[in-house]
Amino acid sequence: MPTIVVDVMPKAELLDPQGKAVTGAFARLGVDAFSGVRIGKRFELTVEGEVSDEVLAEASRVAAEVLSNSVIEDVVGIEVVE
Amino acid sequence: MPTIVVDVMPKAELLDPQGKAVTGAFARLGVDAFSGVRIGKRFELTVEGEVSDEVLAEASRVAAEVLSNSVIEDVVGIEVVE
Repeated sequence: MPTIVVDVMPKAELLDPQGKAVTGAFARLGVDAFSGVRIGKRFELTVEGEVSDEVLAEASRVAAEVLSNSVIEDVVGIEVVE
Repeated sequence: MPTIVVDVMPKAELLDPQGKAVTGAFARLGVDAFSGVRIGKRFELTVEGEVSDEVLAEASRVAAEVLSNSVIEDVVGIEVVE
């Protein structure tokens, strides 16, 4: 079955406390390859049948209105897989 | 600066209560294009400089050992962007 993946990240200008916590954990663990971590969400929407233009438009709409909070988050990707 | 994106999803055989809640919200809102929703995490790791094989190997290691809980989650993707 096709799946639409929607990626949502905290806005770049906002602090991301979860990401900061992981960055701190990396420092304590001696992991120095990464200078920063930001943590967002990945939604997998299962589609029965075909991914038509209407279904994609509906995915864009729910990504903006239901799956993300536009005050603090950006939808960074909408992609069909499989 | 290059970024390594790590995608982590709840294992397929586990219930995903957050995803179920969104599926229920879709039903109440009259959104019928999607038969299911699963919610995972998207990590963006910032790399200073070049993404060498060592850095990618380190990303795989922290994805498995730090960013995910292998009892309940799968790392479904590790990808370099930019």
